[in-house]
Amino acid sequence: MIKIEHIGIAVKDMDVSCSIYEQLLGTACYKKEQVASEGVNTAFFKTGENKIELLTATTAESPIAKFLEKKGEGIHHIAFDVPDIVAEMDRLKAAGFVLLNEQPKKGADNKLVCFVHPKGTNGVLVELCQEIK
Amino acid sequence: MIKIEHIGIAVKDMDVSCSIYEQLLGTACYKKEQVASEGVNTAFFKTGENKIELLTATTAESPIAKFLEKKGEGIHHIAFDVPDIVAEMDRLKAAGFVLLNEQPKKGADNKLVCFVHPKGTNGVLVELCQEIK
Repeated sequence: MIKIEHIGIAVKDMDVSCSIYEQLLGTACYKKEQVASEGVNTAFFKTGENKIELLTATTAESPIAKFLEKKGEGIHHIAFDVPDIVAEMDRLKAAGFVLLNEQPKKGADNKLVCFVHPKGTNGVLVELCQEIK
Repeated sequence: MIKIEHIGIAVKDMDVSCSIYEQLLGTACYKKEQVASEGVNTAFFKTGENKIELLTATTAESPIAKFLEKKGEGIHHIAFDVPDIVAEMDRLKAAGFVLLNEQPKKGADNKLVCFVHPKGTNGVLVELCQEIK
């Protein structure tokens, strides 16, 4: 793990929440992107070397829709920047962590991503992400 | 807000969780500290310019004890580094955010801290922290 890449926060209303996070962070949202395969809309804010990613659901089957239903709004995941996602997936599997996808998949923000099951990380949904060159 | 200073994660068993996060992050815990006034034990890990802070409760009245009872283990808060905590508290209050303490208080890791009520930040408990010089 090189560093935290972003923190994902599940929200219900993107416009309202973008306005809240612009005020909180004192910086404007610099990118919005839909990830149809995951059923999410995203909005990004820069803070230091990290990003805050707001997430809303676009379908009832979206993981974000299920999260909001079960837990309400709040922090959804921590994403870590990794130089070689396949090597990192192998390392974590060997250490006993459970991966939620066996192959890296295309995520938001031009990244290959893999999620680690929160049952092995004290309830924290961890995302590995590698920039697609 | 300059940057994310740390992510706080509430856990039940510090030894077990330190071992998990050492494996996950590939780095050793570099500091453990008790904050008696908050009823917590803390353990810190470095990742990029940020820290991961594991938190366990030392008393039944600890905010972490209540969080664990209500929500179980998981991400407890995001802390942001601020250059002038009083100025930032004033800015956020003027913008309509609700602060959980009216004066900065002494937190872990040689910081003055203030928490922002999660009801105004999409369920995210936000901590402001300023290094004590």
